[in-house]
Amino acid sequence: MSMQLNKTHDAGRRSWIESANAADCPFPIQNLPFGVFRPRGRSGTARGGIAIGDAVLDISACTAAFEGLAHAAAISCSVSDLNGLMSLGPEAWSALRHQLSDLLSVDNKRGRDVLSPCLFDLNGADMHVPAKVHNFTDFFASIDHATNAGRLFRPNQPLLPNYKYVPVAYNGRSSSIVVSGTAIRRPRGQIMPSGAVEPTFGPCRQLDYEVELGIYLGAKTDLGEPVRIDNAWDHVFGFCVLNDWSARDIQSWEYQPLGPFLGKTFATSVSPWIVTAEALLPFRVPVIERANGDPAPLPHLYSEVDQLEGGLDVTLECSIQSREMRSRGSSRVRLSRGSTRMLYWTPAQMVAHQTSNGCNLEVGDLLGSGTVSGPTSDSLGSLLEITRRGANPLDLHGELREFLADGDDIEIIGSCRREGFASIGFGACTGTIEPVAPLAETSATTRSVPA
Amino acid sequence: MSMQLNKTHDAGRRSWIESANAADCPFPIQNLPFGVFRPRGRSGTARGGIAIGDAVLDISACTAAFEGLAHAAAISCSVSDLNGLMSLGPEAWSALRHQLSDLLSVDNKRGRDVLSPCLFDLNGADMHVPAKVHNFTDFFASIDHATNAGRLFRPNQPLLPNYKYVPVAYNGRSSSIVVSGTAIRRPRGQIMPSGAVEPTFGPCRQLDYEVELGIYLGAKTDLGEPVRIDNAWDHVFGFCVLNDWSARDIQSWEYQPLGPFLGKTFATSVSPWIVTAEALLPFRVPVIERANGDPAPLPHLYSEVDQLEGGLDVTLECSIQSREMRSRGSSRVRLSRGSTRMLYWTPAQMVAHQTSNGCNLEVGDLLGSGTVSGPTSDSLGSLLEITRRGANPLDLHGELREFLADGDDIEIIGSCRREGFASIGFGACTGTIEPVAPLAETSATTRSVPA
Repeated sequence: MSMQLNKTHDAGRRSWIESANAADCPFPIQNLPFGVFRPRGRSGTARGGIAIGDAVLDISACTAAFEGLAHAAAISCSVSDLNGLMSLGPEAWSALRHQLSDLLSVDNKRGRDVLSPCLFDLNGADMHVPAKVHNFTDFFASIDHATNAGRLFRPNQPLLPNYKYVPVAYNGRSSSIVVSGTAIRRPRGQIMPSGAVEPTFGPCRQLDYEVELGIYLGAKTDLGEPVRIDNAWDHVFGFCVLNDWSARDIQSWEYQPLGPFLGKTFATSVSPWIVTAEALLPFRVPVIERANGDPAPLPHLYSEVDQLEGGLDVTLECSIQSREMRSRGSSRVRLSRGSTRMLYWTPAQMVAHQTSNGCNLEVGDLLGSGTVSGPTSDSLGSLLEITRRGANPLDLHGELREFLADGDDIEIIGSCRREGFASIGFGACTGTIEPVAPLAETSATTRSVPA
Repeated sequence: MSMQLNKTHDAGRRSWIESANAADCPFPIQNLPFGVFRPRGRSGTARGGIAIGDAVLDISACTAAFEGLAHAAAISCSVSDLNGLMSLGPEAWSALRHQLSDLLSVDNKRGRDVLSPCLFDLNGADMHVPAKVHNFTDFFASIDHATNAGRLFRPNQPLLPNYKYVPVAYNGRSSSIVVSGTAIRRPRGQIMPSGAVEPTFGPCRQLDYEVELGIYLGAKTDLGEPVRIDNAWDHVFGFCVLNDWSARDIQSWEYQPLGPFLGKTFATSVSPWIVTAEALLPFRVPVIERANGDPAPLPHLYSEVDQLEGGLDVTLECSIQSREMRSRGSSRVRLSRGSTRMLYWTPAQMVAHQTSNGCNLEVGDLLGSGTVSGPTSDSLGSLLEITRRGANPLDLHGELREFLADGDDIEIIGSCRREGFASIGFGACTGTIEPVAPLAETSATTRSVPA
């Protein structure tokens, strides 16, 4: 299935939900992102909804409004994860989106009658992680990030020889994926302080964030069946903003030779709304221009279409507010503003790479782009890069930061703009650092097996 | 909950299922491993069972035989995964095991009457992966394997400085976990041939196996709540044999700097039966003696009890049979025989480490021990080590092997023996290498977004 720009992208389309028509609204009728919500303070289970203006539409409460494939898709939204919807595939996703767009259009009287009773206040909705994620893969697709991070460890060879051939990635941990707004507890871990001869176990001192784009996959595949790059988008349900919290000191001691583990597995935050691949069609861009001498992608990672329109232009803006700033009422300080258009690898290349060895996709799989950094100093997606691992502390109205302090709140906001099209937003992915937990006492136990 | 040796371990106990009393039976009444099966050729869903002698007991077909916690546990076995049973925790696991042991005892007339109609032929049962595994962690706990593998890449520093402090591990891929007997298709991947200047994409030429012990966890934890080493066994449901198939050529080109990915994610095989932690109590052993100058485990990885009885003595025997050997009727050739008693890290240390940063456990989590190798040349758990990455090919009755060839069948068998106790077995974990899949043709697609 190949998607085309269509009436759902029409910049002139407006909704009978007036708040969706405001110029700065992240959720206009051209967006229609999916999430899982529960009206705050009410009983009942969480279920699937879409954000429109300042409202959430409870899709499964108005299934009678939909027909055909869209009807089946709407029914699948009655549970507390979108995996059922994701499993239906791109035709069903698109059918539901098209009928939603029509029903929400300003002149659709029937839509107003049928959907109005199913609207909830967006600000009064508790949001959940929108899918059961069983497999989380984190890529390393920003060449600027790879270079910046590499330079700190290998000044003479910042970029490893495989980088321009392999969309480098590692398996992440899915159990600790949390929704935006969840407090992030500072982890403990083994740390080898500079100059020490033995590691110690204690609170992380180099806590960091990573600004990423998340990619949700639907439409599972069978083991042994690679996805060709030309078909990769059929598996892409949509996108979110992702914060890959990182404990740099834990990671740097543990990561040889098998890669990051406890430095990452304590938490990964995702924004609650999944912006569909179809909604993002107007914001597809060519892949970044390769430098002179850069190799062409190997054949399984190459398609002309992907080179021409396989990139995405999602702006990711990251800001911080410390506890002191909050108590003083100081506004947030921007840390970076970058775009996924600078990524070296496209979503389709990531999907093709992930499955190239026959690895199967499951519904709800999540891919992270890796930290999105750009070539300029105001587009660096982690404190590691901004402070050069603490060497150049950041000044927050007098408070210095090498890494994150307790009480710091990190917010990442995603958005897309293009001349001639309605701007759409992802909403925010936020998290505030909580102090390390008190250490539980160790209770004595007795031996149970006779010698 | 601390487990004690009890009547279920009594070597004198015999079953009214005569085949379970044979001296070489892997599934005597002292074992009672759990699996998920479906009688071959019959309709109906797969469900939980235990292996006893040459039979499988369909637990959910005889729930009336059980009382109290064991009754709830038996009911949880009616579905196609053991996650429900695993979620009930160690008291329920033990209660079900005790009542099963009593009901299957030779003089239990009621047991014979009630359970007999619920028995199926073990050889006529199709076995499934016994749990929904959402998180798979692969450790690196054999110091001999770490040293052998390290020597091939870093002759001057085979063991990295963190090894004796950190139970090194990485996140595995759960989607491609398959049950014993599933054919393993040779993967394709990016490979940088020795001396080449550019990588190629093609069939893996260094396909390997890894002999491992698998550890299934039950009883989930909350994010931010580390498991203390003294409580770690409360989360260990049981053990299996695991083959961490590895594409060495893909892995060595991709793995810097984020660790193994496509070199591993194409398949991981598990034996169908989960031998419970309680059944393995008689085979607990002290941790291996540390070398002079080795550091003590950091406090969160240390308990006296764990040092004294936290190891396990499971013998893992690996053998090969090539297609030619099968056609000639030649018997299998043993590749190695090692024991998990040689591991540097214990299961409790793995659980404590995994959760030490607050990472939560989910029901059905699977931990791999990492390749189990010993210090002798006949106890090396991978071809990488046996052939020194192909430098010393293996001679199979005249066929040479640097790595696995199409048609090769690998079998790993687990077993435990101890004077004064009944021997118990894990059964086998097998897999035969299938040729690489034909390459799908690339279909042309058109651009969908206007420039």
